[in-house]
Parts: sequence; structure tokens; C-alpha cells
Amino acid sequence: MKEFQLIEHYFHRQNQQRRDVKLGIGDDCALVQVPENKSLAISCDTLVEGVHFFADMPARELGYKSLAVNLSDLAAMGAEPAWMTLALTLPEVNQTWLQGFSEGLFEAADYYGVSLIGGDTTRGPLSINITIHGLVPNDTALKRSGAKVGDWIYVTGTLGDSALGLNILAGKVQVDADNKDYLIGRHYRPTPRVLAGQSLRSLASSAIDLSDGLMSDLGHILKASEVGAIIDVGSIPQSEAMTSSVSQDDALSYGLTGGEDYELLFTVPESQRGALDTALLHAGVKFSKIGQISAGRELKLLLDGQAFIPNFSGFEHF
Amino acid sequence: MKEFQLIEHYFHRQNQQRRDVKLGIGDDCALVQVPENKSLAISCDTLVEGVHFFADMPARELGYKSLAVNLSDLAAMGAEPAWMTLALTLPEVNQTWLQGFSEGLFEAADYYGVSLIGGDTTRGPLSINITIHGLVPNDTALKRSGAKVGDWIYVTGTLGDSALGLNILAGKVQVDADNKDYLIGRHYRPTPRVLAGQSLRSLASSAIDLSDGLMSDLGHILKASEVGAIIDVGSIPQSEAMTSSVSQDDALSYGLTGGEDYELLFTVPESQRGALDTALLHAGVKFSKIGQISAGRELKLLLDGQAFIPNFSGFEHF
Repeated sequence: MKEFQLIEHYFHRQNQQRRDVKLGIGDDCALVQVPENKSLAISCDTLVEGVHFFADMPARELGYKSLAVNLSDLAAMGAEPAWMTLALTLPEVNQTWLQGFSEGLFEAADYYGVSLIGGDTTRGPLSINITIHGLVPNDTALKRSGAKVGDWIYVTGTLGDSALGLNILAGKVQVDADNKDYLIGRHYRPTPRVLAGQSLRSLASSAIDLSDGLMSDLGHILKASEVGAIIDVGSIPQSEAMTSSVSQDDALSYGLTGGEDYELLFTVPESQRGALDTALLHAGVKFSKIGQISAGRELKLLLDGQAFIPNFSGFEHF
Repeated sequence: MKEFQLIEHYFHRQNQQRRDVKLGIGDDCALVQVPENKSLAISCDTLVEGVHFFADMPARELGYKSLAVNLSDLAAMGAEPAWMTLALTLPEVNQTWLQGFSEGLFEAADYYGVSLIGGDTTRGPLSINITIHGLVPNDTALKRSGAKVGDWIYVTGTLGDSALGLNILAGKVQVDADNKDYLIGRHYRPTPRVLAGQSLRSLASSAIDLSDGLMSDLGHILKASEVGAIIDVGSIPQSEAMTSSVSQDDALSYGLTGGEDYELLFTVPESQRGALDTALLHAGVKFSKIGQISAGRELKLLLDGQAFIPNFSGFEHF
């Protein structure tokens, strides 16, 4: 099967494009329109077999997740999703796999309103690269650099579930059947907080999505904002599946260091706390206050007033 | 070395960004501005070791070429280059390699006015994916679909050199030292016809860049435009290095089927031929008329009035 036929068959959906796509897949470039009053937010992420996912990950879940992790970057900027390009490197043409992958990808694309506007398929070890494009009103994008001393630190959802799900898949942890399904689901199908991110535009002083783990990602905010933080480890939100599956110490460590939750971490000044409650209620997202920005450059972890040291550390490429 | 430190060290050049980049590498997304009267052109290409390049390709050349092949897609739309994201998958952190690769990449980026605005570095088999972004005045982009019966068919530069250069690298062909350097240079350092593409905006009825080979890429224009073509094989431009290195039959076959020339193929109505001469003279690019668009859907190759069949066929993934 020829490369372009392959792409066309599984990924070409001419009739389901956004109106701002003037030219989609099939020419040398796609052509899109950006409204005058909006900035374009761009990010890219690669998933490599054996590094980011196991070889037996279901194709449909992989398609879904490949887009979801990119949407999470848009969420962290407060941008609305618009378009993506897909670079797919495949060891072989496996029709069943392609069918499942494209279904999962378009399930997420349709839900979040994203058009696939271009791509490239090459032969090689399996990897998926998506470059995502979103729109955000000029001068309203959330950045990592705006946190101020005294701002409160929040996260959406519950933390650590994805890392525990990964350990279950790797056979390192055993849990009961219901919790297993839930936790693996959290690992396979993260829920990018796209609406929550847009709701935070005029409220949050800084934001980031949790891909590497709370400590690591909070570190990025602290570095970019030139501040420190105190985290009340006991207030880090945990799922019931987490608390009923592992020890309290392990649960706290998963919450602090587990990667790939794709929840939002953000800071809000005291003056905006009331508005925050209203805004995120409308977005239908659970959120929790877990600490406060402090002077200096240190990240302090406290549990019941005592310094806390996690059992294990976060994930790092290389 | 940590992933972000790696990216920062070799790829973070905060002081050399375009003015339309509001936020570059270092946050969840980059933020850029698109002028109101312009469309955004987007394309992506992946280069995989062992598929698109040999393991011993010099890192600097690979960096240059990775961007050049993407710029060629912008050229084919008549777009001016603006920004790129880079997804780099590396088997290991090799500082010498990274230094060379980034130097080659930025050599091309600086020459063509492109800012690197985001990226992702992961561990895995070596591959390079670039998503390129360019700007083109609304409703002036060159497409594959506009060729009309009677339009003349042109190409820039000389054809087949890159494929011959590849065969020299593969040890399949021997040529003398000067020609070897020239032909390998054409393979390693294609010259995306960015200025020529912009000059063609109001003149050409269709355009494409030559990545898969003349016959294959012309086929895309014919399909998109629903027309046929007659090519005068004897008028396909050849370099002196080509004609002095291989038989005339082989030279013609390289010109018809050799991939990766990254020259432009375009069609021009009779009424625009005078304007074309003036426009491309200003762009400083050699160009040659090689045939004419015909009714029907057939591609006819003629040499001295007789049907011509090339010695070998083009490249195809999968």
C-alpha cells in the first residue's frame, strides 16, 4: 500500500473540518486562518514505543492518549484547541492497528473540536508525534512565570493515579479488579483540562500541566516565577482507588512524583479565590488547594507540620 | 543530563527570535501572532535513520536538511517561512552530535528567517520531526489543484542530482571526485526554492515540490487538477555533474524518477509566461519548461517524439 493511500484511508475526513481550515490534508501544506484578536499557541509531543508506552497498549487507547497529552499543553495555556498535524512512524502497515489508532485519535479530536490538517507517515520504529495548535485571546495566555509570593497553589482532579496505573500494567503492583480498571483507565485516557484552563485565563497567575509529576512540574513554575512554595502534602487530592490500593505513604509519594496525570497545577492570588470557585464550578472540575507560594526559591513539603520525603522520585528522560 | 537542560543548551536562543514570537521555548506552548491579512501554512516531515538517511550522515548536514525539506513545502505554497517545532528522538545524549546537528539546523533557520519555538526530546531510535509554519497573503497560496489544459510545465534547478548523490553514498555508483562532492552536496543540502515560490504566487496555476521524483509528484498535480500532461523528457534540466557521470538514458531516468531534489514543479498559463521570466529572474533561480498540461488524465513521456520508458522507478515508503 502506498504511503499517501494509507494516510488518506484512515486519516482523511474532508467533510469534518473546522471552518477555519481553508485547505486540509492533500497538498504541500495545510492552510488555516487565525482571528486577528487571538494568539496562536503551539506545542508538540512525541510518544515512543518502549519509552512512553508498552508494545501491547491497545491502538485505540494510544490514539486517544496521543492527542490528549498534547491537548493538556493547550489547557495549561488557557487555549482552545484548533488543529493538529500527525507524524506517524510505523514498523509495518497493520490495518487493524491503524483502524483502532485512528478511531481513538478522532474520538478525542471530535470531543475537543480539533481538525487533523496534515501529517507524514514513515517506516520505522513505532512513534507518534503530534503538533497541536490552539487559539487564545491576545495577552490572556496562562504562563509559568506569573506566580507571586502569597498566591495559593491548586491542582485539578486527583494525583498519582496514572503512575499507579502504569505500575499495575508493568506488574509491579497488584490491586483489586475495579481499582485496576480505573487506574489503568487514568493512565490510558487522561482528561486534558481544556475547559478549566480557559476558565482560569483571567484568574490564575501561573499554570502548568502535570506531565512529569507534581514536584517536577511545580519546580518549573517556581523557577520561571523566581519564587518558592510550601506544599501541604496531606491536602494533595487522592482517588479512592489510590487510597484503597496502596499504603498512605506510597499514595502521598505517587501524588508528589507520579507522572502523566495531565491535571492542571495553577496559582491564584487571594483576591481571586471567590471568582475561582465560581469559574471552576462552571467547568465541572474538582480542584484542591495544596499549598502557597513563598519567598525564596525553596520547595518545602510538609505533612502535619513536619518535613516530608517521598518514597520514590519522578520520571526523567535520559 | 536532564531532558530540558539538553534542549535548552543546544536549542534555546532567546535573543534571536522573530518579533512575532510572543513566547518561545520554555512554557507549555509557544505563542505567536499571525497578521490579519495572512493565512498560516503548516506542514510536517519526519526523517528516520536507516529510512531517510544513513547512520553515518554528518550531524550538521542532517540538521540543515531536516529544516530544508520542510521549507521546501512552504516554497511550494508560496509561503514565507516563520516558525518551527522540533521533535527529536535520540538513542543517547551525544554532545558532539547535538552540537553539529543544532549548528546545521540554525544555519538553515537563520538563512531563511525561521524561529525555533518549541520542541520535544525523547529517547528512542534516531528520528527528526519538524513542523514548519509559514505565512502567505490570504487567497494567494499555490495549490496542486489549479493546472489547466494548455498550461506550461516548469521545474526549477536540475533534476536527479540528489538521487545520484544517494547512490554514490550507497556505493552503487562511482564518479570522479569533483562530481562526487557536488552530487552528495545536492543530496545533503537541498536548496528549498523559497523566494521562487513567493515570486510564483500570482503567476503559477499550480505548484508542488519535488520530493518523491518528477513522475510521482507531477502525478499529484494531475490528480488534484484532473488533467493529463505531456513531458518532453529531453528538456528535463540536468547538471553537468550528472551528464558527465552516467549514461544519457540513466540521466533521463534520474531526472524523471529520482527523489529528494526539492526543486519546484509548477504550471503557468501562456498569458503569464512573460511575467514569469521577469519574476524568476529577480529570484535568481534557473527554471526550464519541460512540457504541457493536456486533456485526459494520462502522463505521456516523449523523447524526440517517441514514447520513453525510464530505466528505474521512484521511491515509495511501505
